[in-house]
Amino acid sequence: MSRLTETAKGVYVIAVTPFRADGAIDLTSTDSMVEFYLGAGATGLTVLGIMGEAPKLTPEESALIVKRILDRVAGRVPVVVGVSAPGFAQVQTLTAKVMDEGAAGVMIAPPGNLRTDDQIVGYYQQAADFIGDTPFVLQDFPLATGVQISVSTIARIIENVPTCVCLKHEDWPGLEKISALRKPGTLNRRISILCGNGGVFLPEEMGRGADGAMTGFAYPEMMVSVVENHARGDFERAHDLFDAYLPLARFEQQPGLGLAVRKYVLAKRGVIADPAMRRPGVPLSATGQAEVGRLMARQERRLSELG
Amino acid sequence: MSRLTETAKGVYVIAVTPFRADGAIDLTSTDSMVEFYLGAGATGLTVLGIMGEAPKLTPEESALIVKRILDRVAGRVPVVVGVSAPGFAQVQTLTAKVMDEGAAGVMIAPPGNLRTDDQIVGYYQQAADFIGDTPFVLQDFPLATGVQISVSTIARIIENVPTCVCLKHEDWPGLEKISALRKPGTLNRRISILCGNGGVFLPEEMGRGADGAMTGFAYPEMMVSVVENHARGDFERAHDLFDAYLPLARFEQQPGLGLAVRKYVLAKRGVIADPAMRRPGVPLSATGQAEVGRLMARQERRLSELG
Amino acid sequence: MSRLTETAKGVYVIAVTPFRADGAIDLTSTDSMVEFYLGAGATGLTVLGIMGEAPKLTPEESALIVKRILDRVAGRVPVVVGVSAPGFAQVQTLTAKVMDEGAAGVMIAPPGNLRTDDQIVGYYQQAADFIGDTPFVLQDFPLATGVQISVSTIARIIENVPTCVCLKHEDWPGLEKISALRKPGTLNRRISILCGNGGVFLPEEMGRGADGAMTGFAYPEMMVSVVENHARGDFERAHDLFDAYLPLARFEQQPGLGLAVRKYVLAKRGVIADPAMRRPGVPLSATGQAEVGRLMARQERRLSELG
Amino acid sequence: MSRLTETAKGVYVIAVTPFRADGAIDLTSTDSMVEFYLGAGATGLTVLGIMGEAPKLTPEESALIVKRILDRVAGRVPVVVGVSAPGFAQVQTLTAKVMDEGAAGVMIAPPGNLRTDDQIVGYYQQAADFIGDTPFVLQDFPLATGVQISVSTIARIIENVPTCVCLKHEDWPGLEKISALRKPGTLNRRISILCGNGGVFLPEEMGRGADGAMTGFAYPEMMVSVVENHARGDFERAHDLFDAYLPLARFEQQPGLGLAVRKYVLAKRGVIADPAMRRPGVPLSATGQAEVGRLMARQERRLSELG
Repeated sequence: MSRLTETAKGVYVIAVTPFRADGAIDLTSTDSMVEFYLGAGATGLTVLGIMGEAPKLTPEESALIVKRILDRVAGRVPVVVGVSAPGFAQVQTLTAKVMDEGAAGVMIAPPGNLRTDDQIVGYYQQAADFIGDTPFVLQDFPLATGVQISVSTIARIIENVPTCVCLKHEDWPGLEKISALRKPGTLNRRISILCGNGGVFLPEEMGRGADGAMTGFAYPEMMVSVVENHARGDFERAHDLFDAYLPLARFEQQPGLGLAVRKYVLAKRGVIADPAMRRPGVPLSATGQAEVGRLMARQERRLSELG
Repeated sequence: MSRLTETAKGVYVIAVTPFRADGAIDLTSTDSMVEFYLGAGATGLTVLGIMGEAPKLTPEESALIVKRILDRVAGRVPVVVGVSAPGFAQVQTLTAKVMDEGAAGVMIAPPGNLRTDDQIVGYYQQAADFIGDTPFVLQDFPLATGVQISVSTIARIIENVPTCVCLKHEDWPGLEKISALRKPGTLNRRISILCGNGGVFLPEEMGRGADGAMTGFAYPEMMVSVVENHARGDFERAHDLFDAYLPLARFEQQPGLGLAVRKYVLAKRGVIADPAMRRPGVPLSATGQAEVGRLMARQERRLSELG
Repeated sequence: MSRLTETAKGVYVIAVTPFRADGAIDLTSTDSMVEFYLGAGATGLTVLGIMGEAPKLTPEESALIVKRILDRVAGRVPVVVGVSAPGFAQVQTLTAKVMDEGAAGVMIAPPGNLRTDDQIVGYYQQAADFIGDTPFVLQDFPLATGVQISVSTIARIIENVPTCVCLKHEDWPGLEKISALRKPGTLNRRISILCGNGGVFLPEEMGRGADGAMTGFAYPEMMVSVVENHARGDFERAHDLFDAYLPLARFEQQPGLGLAVRKYVLAKRGVIADPAMRRPGVPLSATGQAEVGRLMARQERRLSELG
Repeated sequence: MSRLTETAKGVYVIAVTPFRADGAIDLTSTDSMVEFYLGAGATGLTVLGIMGEAPKLTPEESALIVKRILDRVAGRVPVVVGVSAPGFAQVQTLTAKVMDEGAAGVMIAPPGNLRTDDQIVGYYQQAADFIGDTPFVLQDFPLATGVQISVSTIARIIENVPTCVCLKHEDWPGLEKISALRKPGTLNRRISILCGNGGVFLPEEMGRGADGAMTGFAYPEMMVSVVENHARGDFERAHDLFDAYLPLARFEQQPGLGLAVRKYVLAKRGVIADPAMRRPGVPLSATGQAEVGRLMARQERRLSELG
């Protein structure tokens, strides 16, 4: 199985974890979800992310779902696994297991108690020691982690930790950060930059030098279109399509509720059987469902206008 | 001069503070800005908010700009003044001064060290004691203040503090919160709810029962249109116009950079003479300016399509 | 095996997790540590706490050390196990396992993202649903968790969640909170209150109505003496002994370094073989070791003066 | 009037702000307080600090109390004034005013929104630009500000900002930080290090290379004794005296309540007329007063034993 490298690009979809209404993992929906993402043009998958409800799973369930997805993907695209944990022992154990089963790499977010640049660099050096030669994605998501990683700190990590091959860029929206990272001389080697935030800044992020997206908007085809049209130089077409999806993409950017929106849309599209989340997740209210339904209808109308 | 009441509605624009390139307050631009906001259909103004760079002003400068705006508005619309301060003595002094000069009410955000519901309720009770019978706006903006105010806590404040007449709702996006506040029985009296967040959830907020917006998007005419079309029941027209402005409204939602975007657009529109912010504010980069220019051109095109 | 109840009192020592210099768990030291704590007069033990380096263990290691301690204790005193985890599934699984093996109850700290009173009450109601009839300790430690739990919120939890039998009180130092909780009418039933913070406020905490301590100061005999002398009404003797240990107890209250101090003392006293902590824990510097050595010598001198 | 320099040493007492029971500033007590501090051996004073309730004063009141203290001190010792404010304009205005009136320097804490090392260094560079050649104290107090300043960041500030002459070290307790700062090669010039935290780590801080204390424990004579005995090499005597005061010094370390304890002791000692704090400060309860009274009596007894 090929490993994640600095050349990663396109759209790595952050997979949800499908549950049944009773809270059990829905493996059948896991399979259909994989096929949907790959059919939509995903160039990779990322599992056990924050939006994959990873913290709500037991270690056994985490192992189960990763194995199921890896088996279903069967090498068609690289799969990245989130292994963030409070301690290095857990990071090490989970990494060894998933790499053994065929993952392409892992993703590591900084623990919330890191404050200074030295602490952040030190954390990633230690983490890298524990996972050996496994390539990893540095998750830069201050709004969720509370940790601000400056450009100069990223540069120090890239210089000192050769197994860091990709940045999941989610420093809302941090367009200047992408420009600074792509400025010759900032980093001592080029890494992949894939952007998060549900894709709501994707056209500008691509324009600044990103290689694609790593996020889970319920219409991954939007992100695939933006990346592809951008690659062929048709920026206006990329932006027209983006604008058509934006009202719904924006609606997904609701802390605490965003995942309920995403799963509701995926269930309505037939991708997963049930929009259920595990507690303490709160399902979408009837009013929220009506709002999403209206946005979906408007989006369809606008897309058909655009052709 | 009329005072702010529970019936406040429409669009209260959060005014920027215009500076000259050398950092001095630009009083001429302050005047033209007032005329622009009122010409765009603002039903009120809010000054000395976070986006008005209030914390960067000396007490003398704060007094100067409030006086200038009040004089220029000359009673045409109510003016709310932000008086949030670390201590009640400052809140009291500033409130007395601006009310004396003709303000319609004040706005108070919770200090960042409040944690429990009791602390929040206690804070507003004490603040109200200090400002006497002045009507005030409760600013609920957790992302900026770090303070989460639950629905039941708002209900306690409304019950115990009769001078609280309006909620500046900015709990991103907090649609369910509006529904809960509007549910009969939640509050013991109806208050005005005006929404922030740059207007990027305004159609849904109006649908949930908001009375309008209190925010500073550089195109206040968008917010005026949404509120007016909503009032006359033309929800699709409201949403069509909203969608046309959304790509730029979204672009303004960049923590740290949003005000630079807003001031750049206002300067480009001729509302203020210079987009300068006081340090530590960072101006928009050349790339950022190009991105905004492109979004403005696309927006104009889309608006003319819509007619 | 008896279960933890509202009558818990005395000193529940927060056990460290002994490691060898190479980072492996030291089971022999685990045994000697248990004997030391019980010999010093502990009326209970608490394992897998924050100061037990729980987050640095793999699930397998956690299970191993809990089993070893339960086997060694063999029912002589009740053992409480920390089961705090990001999701309820993990809380449930770990609780079922340790209760099955003979634990007396579990301890649950609130996740750091809880902000409002309603969220906190809701969290404990859900957690209690997941662990069934297992009695649990509510850990109130704002400095570590970032969550402030008000007296009225504790009252709501006690009223709604009958399996909450004990408060680990660690709201530095929160003396007024103990008084408020003990005031007739505040809670609808009496629960056990055991205090943390390394024991540095223990005389006053006992005076306010606490039932004892649940913390891990390297000289548990100090806490046992204070509790016992307090019980027999000899407050001055309790305070004299407390004062003799205070310089060292204070020295242990160093965020980030406190555990290194504690383990260094325990190793020097022969309780555990090695003061090693798992990364990212930092060992005590040579200067720090000298400071501790000096404080130990001064403490010994003062204790012999007191007789 | 002499200016603060890198050679500052001894005990700079953080002055409280005396209020009357009705909340007005008590200027008579301000005078007696100054005489008390100087009589106790203070080598300097610091006014308008966090523990001076500075944020609760109006700008006019701040000016009034600074002027009164400067006039009373009349050049006998250097006076440092806290000028921390949300914006540079306020920092600049207040600094100019107090330096003009005879202050020796100012103290600046970082605003709570700074996260990365670059942001912190940039903030102090800009602040220094605004205050010209005024010497200033860098306040490093993470527990209160939320900002962690690493040793390498302090080194960058010292290198880039020549007017930074003193560190108020309050990174609880941060003994290793003092050692690192005093290690040859860490800083490019020697600065003064004065320690906070109510003096509860003063013997160890002096041993690590601190120049004294800058804090407001209600018995400044303890800090003077520790510094003086340390200077003459009598470390055991320094520690014996420290230990006698420690139970009360510890009791003052209660977030939210510490100032109430301090003012209660000062009033009981006759230094100020009334222990009143401005709202939202909460006065010491009757139980708290009894606890303090008991600690004062025990302290007196122990001091007379020591002779």
